[in-house]
Amino acid sequence: MISVFEHPWLGGLFADEASRALFSADTQLRHMLEIEAAFSRALGHVGNGPSDAAEDTARAIEGAEIDLAALRDGTGKDGVVVPALVRQLKALPGVSADLVHKGMTSQDIIDTSLSLTLKHLTDILIARVETAATEVQVLNRRYGTRRIMGRTRMQAALPVPLSHRFKTWADPLKAHAARLEAQRPRVELLQLGGPVGTAEELGDEAGKISKFMAEALGLQSVASSWHSQRDGIAEYASTLSLISGSLGKIGMDLCLMAQQGIDEASFAGGGGSSAMAHKNNPVLAELLVTLARFNATQVSAMHHALVHEQERSGAAWTLEWMVLPQMAATTSLGLAKVVELFEMITSLGSDETPGQPV
Amino acid sequence: MISVFEHPWLGGLFADEASRALFSADTQLRHMLEIEAAFSRALGHVGNGPSDAAEDTARAIEGAEIDLAALRDGTGKDGVVVPALVRQLKALPGVSADLVHKGMTSQDIIDTSLSLTLKHLTDILIARVETAATEVQVLNRRYGTRRIMGRTRMQAALPVPLSHRFKTWADPLKAHAARLEAQRPRVELLQLGGPVGTAEELGDEAGKISKFMAEALGLQSVASSWHSQRDGIAEYASTLSLISGSLGKIGMDLCLMAQQGIDEASFAGGGGSSAMAHKNNPVLAELLVTLARFNATQVSAMHHALVHEQERSGAAWTLEWMVLPQMAATTSLGLAKVVELFEMITSLGSDETPGQPV
Amino acid sequence: MISVFEHPWLGGLFADEASRALFSADTQLRHMLEIEAAFSRALGHVGNGPSDAAEDTARAIEGAEIDLAALRDGTGKDGVVVPALVRQLKALPGVSADLVHKGMTSQDIIDTSLSLTLKHLTDILIARVETAATEVQVLNRRYGTRRIMGRTRMQAALPVPLSHRFKTWADPLKAHAARLEAQRPRVELLQLGGPVGTAEELGDEAGKISKFMAEALGLQSVASSWHSQRDGIAEYASTLSLISGSLGKIGMDLCLMAQQGIDEASFAGGGGSSAMAHKNNPVLAELLVTLARFNATQVSAMHHALVHEQERSGAAWTLEWMVLPQMAATTSLGLAKVVELFEMITSLGSDETPGQPV
Amino acid sequence: MISVFEHPWLGGLFADEASRALFSADTQLRHMLEIEAAFSRALGHVGNGPSDAAEDTARAIEGAEIDLAALRDGTGKDGVVVPALVRQLKALPGVSADLVHKGMTSQDIIDTSLSLTLKHLTDILIARVETAATEVQVLNRRYGTRRIMGRTRMQAALPVPLSHRFKTWADPLKAHAARLEAQRPRVELLQLGGPVGTAEELGDEAGKISKFMAEALGLQSVASSWHSQRDGIAEYASTLSLISGSLGKIGMDLCLMAQQGIDEASFAGGGGSSAMAHKNNPVLAELLVTLARFNATQVSAMHHALVHEQERSGAAWTLEWMVLPQMAATTSLGLAKVVELFEMITSLGSDETPGQPV
Repeated sequence: MISVFEHPWLGGLFADEASRALFSADTQLRHMLEIEAAFSRALGHVGNGPSDAAEDTARAIEGAEIDLAALRDGTGKDGVVVPALVRQLKALPGVSADLVHKGMTSQDIIDTSLSLTLKHLTDILIARVETAATEVQVLNRRYGTRRIMGRTRMQAALPVPLSHRFKTWADPLKAHAARLEAQRPRVELLQLGGPVGTAEELGDEAGKISKFMAEALGLQSVASSWHSQRDGIAEYASTLSLISGSLGKIGMDLCLMAQQGIDEASFAGGGGSSAMAHKNNPVLAELLVTLARFNATQVSAMHHALVHEQERSGAAWTLEWMVLPQMAATTSLGLAKVVELFEMITSLGSDETPGQPV
Repeated sequence: MISVFEHPWLGGLFADEASRALFSADTQLRHMLEIEAAFSRALGHVGNGPSDAAEDTARAIEGAEIDLAALRDGTGKDGVVVPALVRQLKALPGVSADLVHKGMTSQDIIDTSLSLTLKHLTDILIARVETAATEVQVLNRRYGTRRIMGRTRMQAALPVPLSHRFKTWADPLKAHAARLEAQRPRVELLQLGGPVGTAEELGDEAGKISKFMAEALGLQSVASSWHSQRDGIAEYASTLSLISGSLGKIGMDLCLMAQQGIDEASFAGGGGSSAMAHKNNPVLAELLVTLARFNATQVSAMHHALVHEQERSGAAWTLEWMVLPQMAATTSLGLAKVVELFEMITSLGSDETPGQPV
Repeated sequence: MISVFEHPWLGGLFADEASRALFSADTQLRHMLEIEAAFSRALGHVGNGPSDAAEDTARAIEGAEIDLAALRDGTGKDGVVVPALVRQLKALPGVSADLVHKGMTSQDIIDTSLSLTLKHLTDILIARVETAATEVQVLNRRYGTRRIMGRTRMQAALPVPLSHRFKTWADPLKAHAARLEAQRPRVELLQLGGPVGTAEELGDEAGKISKFMAEALGLQSVASSWHSQRDGIAEYASTLSLISGSLGKIGMDLCLMAQQGIDEASFAGGGGSSAMAHKNNPVLAELLVTLARFNATQVSAMHHALVHEQERSGAAWTLEWMVLPQMAATTSLGLAKVVELFEMITSLGSDETPGQPV
Repeated sequence: MISVFEHPWLGGLFADEASRALFSADTQLRHMLEIEAAFSRALGHVGNGPSDAAEDTARAIEGAEIDLAALRDGTGKDGVVVPALVRQLKALPGVSADLVHKGMTSQDIIDTSLSLTLKHLTDILIARVETAATEVQVLNRRYGTRRIMGRTRMQAALPVPLSHRFKTWADPLKAHAARLEAQRPRVELLQLGGPVGTAEELGDEAGKISKFMAEALGLQSVASSWHSQRDGIAEYASTLSLISGSLGKIGMDLCLMAQQGIDEASFAGGGGSSAMAHKNNPVLAELLVTLARFNATQVSAMHHALVHEQERSGAAWTLEWMVLPQMAATTSLGLAKVVELFEMITSLGSDETPGQPV
């Protein structure tokens, strides 16, 4: 198994149920069917077809049993799943083929599906970021008045209350919640532009179709397509990495606090060693550092994907597919693990004031 | 010369006067002196010293002639310029050494100076982003109704009006201006925390000192230091790269349009070849692609610097110094060059509608 | 599904059978059992235990039915699979627990298993690189004497024979085969150091144990462990990305050649569009560009993992696990796809000499 | 000043005399003149012109006073310095314009100049890598038998002799020296291909010209140009980052050893603080970590530059110019600083065996 997120045993460390469910074939396929159904209904709604037939088509699409093997074959050939999906939808009993997908393009489906995914992801991440911040407050109530040695450049500086360290953990988390919320209008966006993004193939009613679909799907309507404008997506990916980075700082701090000789943090149930019975490794603290560095690397690819030539770049777009789900999983996982790690803490700091270095 | 931005001849391509001036030793040193002066005055203002002596000290600092060689030696030893600078300031005639820097730390000076730099940089970038967007509108008025072949996956798709292509260039620029503006409160922030960030060494008047300094410097006051919270900086760096990325898309589009056989763009005064007299290379269009890839790479380092351990990480902080000025220069340069490139355009598209591919 | 390599439908584009098999749970588990068995036999061989018992233990390990759910739970807790695996092995009927894993550490197993994986991967990659180079020769025999317009800075320069372009595709492939071969001794290395890498826990016979195991496993013996020396691995990862990069150049060239208006390449069976019946997209050529940018991003993480503190860095080591298998799959996939792409070519260049640009 | 390497005060930390001299305008210009002179002589040697005139031309080129401002203007327009340089050379008194640069292209000059630079750089780096390895041996003789606590996952594991830690520092350095030596034939290569890399413009004597020039310049002759084959360069850049990464591990180890509470390393003359008189910061140890992360980031750009389309990619090639000199300076600097850091060590480990953790 190439991916740690879905690996039989590494998944014990890396799997994250929330992101797994969101990126599952079921959910992703459901998104695509919802979008195609909303489109068919929209055609009826604006009078581009009989509304009964449109409704029948939409329902048939929503209830479709999809042949995944055919999707796979089609993706291998076309580079995107939608042509194969549309072929299946048009062949469904009860659909009017003319009311299926006509005037849209593959990217409309894939990107709108991504918008739905990121909307749900944002819900998850905001909740998790807030939980993590709350858990820091719990630590603060328990240990905030204790003093540890403040350290700069990894050298003892002056004693600080643990509340100070906690503040540097919690403040960025709160800022991240605000960032995620603020970015919603730039990522929870319907994509609807047709083959070259002009929406010309949708005719005069393109605006109404867009409005209808956006409402049906819980997204923002758009005046124009963003096929080749990826700044919203890259900004979102950057925020994912900002979150992982802030968690990495917490993890690094805890790794350093847990060192024998420093002895500022103790954990229950740390990781065991195959060789040394006495080891109690702060595995999750290290994992937060790993996840920070992983996302700090991946974010670069999402920025490279901004060089999205002409009306649609297969190369740049496909790069997003390889990277963004991993970034989402990494961020979601980190937020779950930091809480798990906090809960393993049995002690932070001590009641003694650390001696001043001399 | 290691750096292309200041290289004797490569500077002809890479030098950007605006960012050069902002990151010059003069400007950077002036920032630091302004900050130290504002602090001395603040001490007088809150009564932590006689206000006359504070004012005298501030003026002496503002007018100081600084020995750069000593700063250089000090930086080599201390890893940061401030200790050597403070030594010089304390030795100035007319200063009360007790009213110089006391209670602050190096990072307060360097990071507040960065805030001043980014404030001015944001002014520059917003103006340039808006100019670039306006210049796209100029192109649109001239060529917007012409049709070119829309291309997806680098293959002819359907004709589109150039206005459509232009929209995909201009919209992200407008979004970037809004992003820069929205991020001001998260980067134009006083840094004031003292040795370990708690501001304890500033005593009970820390809040008033912060407020006074922030007003004097045109920054936001802060309730607490952000020594080890780098999310604002990393977010700003991400925005720099978003801008470069959007310019890279424009550059790539123009490179592709300028190909013989495609013939959708002509330029006056492109680059010559040492071997082929007929060449008229779209050098600036290619440069925009280069700058996009450069910043898409650098942004990764700024995200790695989020893993900023304890109260101050020399390693992570120093990494910012190596990367952020280059990202700023790259973004500022790109915004200047895209306008220069637009002005070299002699024709885009043609009056003929491109034939549909068969 | 987070990973494109194992995705139900994206797998149609991204799945690569060779790397999938190599990184399968079956293969990876078999590697680990082979290593543990070789170690138990080695103990018997050097007289650290009765050789009958050692052989019985080895056979029991080789034939073990492993409970994957327990491995997963253990990995979640310990951060590495080995402690949970060793617990199962010690409990097997017929094993002498004293002859299982004693004196080794988790990293010995995981890294030696990686060495086995990379050995097989190198076999695959060398074969594929050579096949790809041979296929370029096939193209050369068919089209090499045709002339296309040579292009520099994306502008028409002077006509070149296609043989010249082909040479720039094939030469790096040959160099990559040589690189892979040359690096074998630096990656196909037994890892054997025990808890802190000193091999002290293996006693006086450590050298003989190492030699025996290396022979049994087809790896190089080592004088000392490389737990915290990751340069061989990072170098190998760099080579993976070099290969992907060279394929990206081929892909980009073919994308550009296939443009309408340039018309230097035609393909049979390119990708279809959900919107435009006439499209014949060079999906695989674009994919090669995507894969190049993906690995050019990932290689950075492998270099960050060189900062591997003390005797074992959980953070840095775990980062390798997230990245290296993906790089391997990307490279192996690209080499398969480039051949598939070459086979889809129906024409390159034309019999006419391209007119000189004026 | 954008660049830390040439910054008035940051240069105190970042400037490296050896790489500064190598990348100076003087040295770089001298390389270009040597190449142009060697070419003119080669034309005489093979009979493509009178040998007297060729020699006169070569001497005039070697002694030329070059107008840097004109080079700068030309670079701004042409994207490369060579056309402006050649114009100056052709106008020199005593030269036969026909024997200047004719048949070559800009990339021949720039890349051959790079080969000369990397040849000298390799000399420097091998010497420095060996010095650093030797200095580890000096430490080993002094402290090697002392024991420190071996640490895995940042937790106390078992005591190890310092000689073990030293081995993990020195072994990769030795491997890097071997890598640099082995890569010489892949980077110390004449570039000679003319406008589109075919060397057709050099006529039948191209092979002889190449051989003559290579000998004159101390480079390898080439059967064909490598204008668009950048694997040798990207491989070299990867090695630069491997070196920085190995130094980063040393730096990180020493930062951790120097912590109060761990107390395994003491330094004389560490960095001072502007706020805390007692601080003795291991600035150079942290710097090694910074430099490792910097190069681990940059290496990604060099791999992106492998996607070098057609006969010459301005975009990809220019990206190399922005990044490779910085990587070279970073590596050279790190190797100087690690030795400086070793020399500041006043103690490592202690005579007591560290107690086993319980």
